[in-house]
Amino acid sequence: MTTRWNQFCANLWTHDSLGIRLDLSQMPDLSPLKSRMKPLIEKAFVEMKALEEGAIANPDENRKVGHYWLRAPQLAPEVELQQAITSTLEKVKDFAADVHAGTIKPPTAEKFTRFLLLGIGGSALGPQWLYDATRNASTPMQAHFIDNTDPEGFERTLDEIGDELNQTLVLVTSKSGGTQETRNAMDEVTAAYEAQNLSFGAHAVAITGDGSRLFKHAQSIGMVGTFPIWDWVGGRTSLFSSVGLVPAALLGVDVDKLLQGAADMDEATRVADVENNPAMLLALSWFAATNGRGERAMALLPYKDRLGLYSRYIQQLVMESLGKELDLESRVVNQGIAVYGNKGSTDQHALVQQLREGPDDFFVTFIEVLEERTGPLRFLDDGVTSGDHLLGFLLGTRLALSENNHINLTMTLPDVSAHSLGMLVAWFERSVGFYASLLGINAYHQPGVEAGKVAAKGYIQLQQEMMKWLSDQAQAATVDEIASALDAQDKADAVFYIAEHLVGNGRLSHNSAPVESRTYHLK
Amino acid sequence: MTTRWNQFCANLWTHDSLGIRLDLSQMPDLSPLKSRMKPLIEKAFVEMKALEEGAIANPDENRKVGHYWLRAPQLAPEVELQQAITSTLEKVKDFAADVHAGTIKPPTAEKFTRFLLLGIGGSALGPQWLYDATRNASTPMQAHFIDNTDPEGFERTLDEIGDELNQTLVLVTSKSGGTQETRNAMDEVTAAYEAQNLSFGAHAVAITGDGSRLFKHAQSIGMVGTFPIWDWVGGRTSLFSSVGLVPAALLGVDVDKLLQGAADMDEATRVADVENNPAMLLALSWFAATNGRGERAMALLPYKDRLGLYSRYIQQLVMESLGKELDLESRVVNQGIAVYGNKGSTDQHALVQQLREGPDDFFVTFIEVLEERTGPLRFLDDGVTSGDHLLGFLLGTRLALSENNHINLTMTLPDVSAHSLGMLVAWFERSVGFYASLLGINAYHQPGVEAGKVAAKGYIQLQQEMMKWLSDQAQAATVDEIASALDAQDKADAVFYIAEHLVGNGRLSHNSAPVESRTYHLK
Repeated sequence: MTTRWNQFCANLWTHDSLGIRLDLSQMPDLSPLKSRMKPLIEKAFVEMKALEEGAIANPDENRKVGHYWLRAPQLAPEVELQQAITSTLEKVKDFAADVHAGTIKPPTAEKFTRFLLLGIGGSALGPQWLYDATRNASTPMQAHFIDNTDPEGFERTLDEIGDELNQTLVLVTSKSGGTQETRNAMDEVTAAYEAQNLSFGAHAVAITGDGSRLFKHAQSIGMVGTFPIWDWVGGRTSLFSSVGLVPAALLGVDVDKLLQGAADMDEATRVADVENNPAMLLALSWFAATNGRGERAMALLPYKDRLGLYSRYIQQLVMESLGKELDLESRVVNQGIAVYGNKGSTDQHALVQQLREGPDDFFVTFIEVLEERTGPLRFLDDGVTSGDHLLGFLLGTRLALSENNHINLTMTLPDVSAHSLGMLVAWFERSVGFYASLLGINAYHQPGVEAGKVAAKGYIQLQQEMMKWLSDQAQAATVDEIASALDAQDKADAVFYIAEHLVGNGRLSHNSAPVESRTYHLK
Repeated sequence: MTTRWNQFCANLWTHDSLGIRLDLSQMPDLSPLKSRMKPLIEKAFVEMKALEEGAIANPDENRKVGHYWLRAPQLAPEVELQQAITSTLEKVKDFAADVHAGTIKPPTAEKFTRFLLLGIGGSALGPQWLYDATRNASTPMQAHFIDNTDPEGFERTLDEIGDELNQTLVLVTSKSGGTQETRNAMDEVTAAYEAQNLSFGAHAVAITGDGSRLFKHAQSIGMVGTFPIWDWVGGRTSLFSSVGLVPAALLGVDVDKLLQGAADMDEATRVADVENNPAMLLALSWFAATNGRGERAMALLPYKDRLGLYSRYIQQLVMESLGKELDLESRVVNQGIAVYGNKGSTDQHALVQQLREGPDDFFVTFIEVLEERTGPLRFLDDGVTSGDHLLGFLLGTRLALSENNHINLTMTLPDVSAHSLGMLVAWFERSVGFYASLLGINAYHQPGVEAGKVAAKGYIQLQQEMMKWLSDQAQAATVDEIASALDAQDKADAVFYIAEHLVGNGRLSHNSAPVESRTYHLK
């Protein structure tokens, strides 16, 4: 056999019955890492086992981490949890069937023909990706999303729905029930229903923690239903909880197959043997690529339109899980792996120029999908298909990168069925978990998000104080004067931003002086 | 005045009549760079002037670089060019008006109600972004895009159009007219029209170079029209040529205002004075952030849903322009700046955790938009708006990053009108041009894209040879045997990928042996 073929086979992991492959032939040799890190690898397997058995795997928040139970309820450490998972799944499926059949229907129309999901981050990205990955001519409902607190974004989405608001089911998703962006969106959407004399509650369901603020609101306005998000499910790993399953079922996705795909991958990645565990192999590849310190970004290129949003989903999963200042022993480590990319071959006409010629600060993760299309093949005049070209472009870019010593790996899936989508998500989830163990960090909290939120709240308060002071004052003042009066000199730039924003929206006026001496007054 | 306020004002650039600002207060002090690089800065101004006057600014391809002329035709160096730009703009506007009025109409329907754009890279990203940034209830046409050679992607988009293919105008965009992905897409879409006994030509226009293969095809099948892409317009800077203007006009975007916005920004960025040139200030900021060597990625966070695809557009512009192995003197420099990000505050629930706590390998570019919404303001119960929260989140994240010594800058736009969108694109285009001058690289070619394309073509040929050999052979063979027979041992891994792809699509069979000894035969 030739050397290239030997080397390729030696670095290829395959799982024939699942139809998946992992090609590490264009990565650094992992053997030294496997030896050197043997104790850490063993520890990662042990920690993962403990996590699956119900240990407090998220110590900062004193929480269990149970997303693996969602696709294998029999593994959940308590019978009550097992029953909750199973009965919720049944409830989700029944609900979707009733919506599709028109048994659950809006007051003034035959059926719910659309849904509008209000949620942000983990509450939105998974459902958005699933919609993009699965919709076709027989998808039973159209989907819309509001995942921000942008007033113009609200308008744009409500415009899309147009006069079919009365056929639209609103899914309000927030684990805590208090997420500001989602609250604001719900406030605006509620007003849109009321403006048409429609009951918002009769068109809405809440997906939230039991007893949360949103849960109580749902009860008080008589929403059509509520679905739980459990304490032990994190936002970025919530796709297989109600958060992802309710929209998936409404979209006609076979949720049993989606879950089965994840369960099958879980089984393959539960093997405590590095050579036969595609998630540990992937985690070790990340370690090799980044020197275990995030020194290279992950450029993720699925060659499939239906996976065009997958990089963004993985960007959240990887960056929020691995981007951590402190390790579990509270040492400063500033870990993380940046993720970007969209899809091939499209990105070959965009960012691949830099990948080939620019700084060596990335590794490419190609995703190949074997099945070209679900319908019959179409041949171009030279006997090849457009899908052959798609593979040709993947291989061409793979070669062009390898030639320039840019490391890359390739993951292969049989198709983009619900089963395969489930496998793909579970593959990355487990790899992220292993990688965090290798680094000794907590993959399941997000302490860095809080600071921005707290500061944001402070700026809303500052704005209210500014408006009150300007109103009391009844005369124009400079930023410096306002900041001094409010004892907020250290926030003078924020005072300026807020004042200009208020001017831009007709709530304050200013004179035409340069910024330093510009004065602001109430309109 | 307080120190913070002084420091802020000293690092704030504003243009009151355009309503734009650039806040560099959270960046390293640029003064040392301005002194040290004075000669290079002067040179960049001189080179930009020469470029605008028609110099061969893209020496590798021996081409002029004329995208600035598109919004100020009077600056084009020849009268013929000026006339071509002006008359094409009129032709585009007339065409769109005729389509909207139904004067130009499909053979079997009253009007074209949709368009389907076939194009990739620079031919698609700008129009996709404009559609996302501008569509509202009064947008006169729905838009669809095929920007790849994925058979399932073709199917999905044709599914979206459903039974309205006869009301759909196809825009085929390819400068060279030979882009493989776009040719494949056109082949498939042509077949879809023919399957409904519709003339493809009667539903299509070509946007391409005069005399190109696509141009000739357009004439031979009697397309509804053709629009030119000139030699001196690059794909990633083609938004203001027919490539962007035809779809923009069809979408009802005020193309005159779009062009005026770019022209206004061009005027502001033509000033040969670093202190008063927001594009040179931005370019110097990139230099300071990355040490002039791509050492930090640009995380681009517009706080506005309508700018959610802008980062992807800029990812292409920046990475394809600046990602270069060689400088103009053929020295190896491996330049480039990686770009990622989606939108705020959404990304605060995804990648911002890592930005706050992870590796210091990025700088954030915030984009603020002053106008919250075009309709009347809506107040939440505490007297603030959802837009106030959006600004609060921007300021909160800005503070959270600055506290952790992560550098960031903020660009402010008055709104997301056509004029502002034009300004925003022109701002980055000029900054990229200046930055390339500072580095001494060619921003206007993409030599690294070619290698992957050539290799891809080779793999298509390899596949054809494999199929022929297996057919002649009439017996099963291993990858190693096939590769040896075709003298392609150095491509054995590609032989494997191709063989498995053919199996996955029912064109070859294999036995169940492990990969090393697996044999393949024709079905």
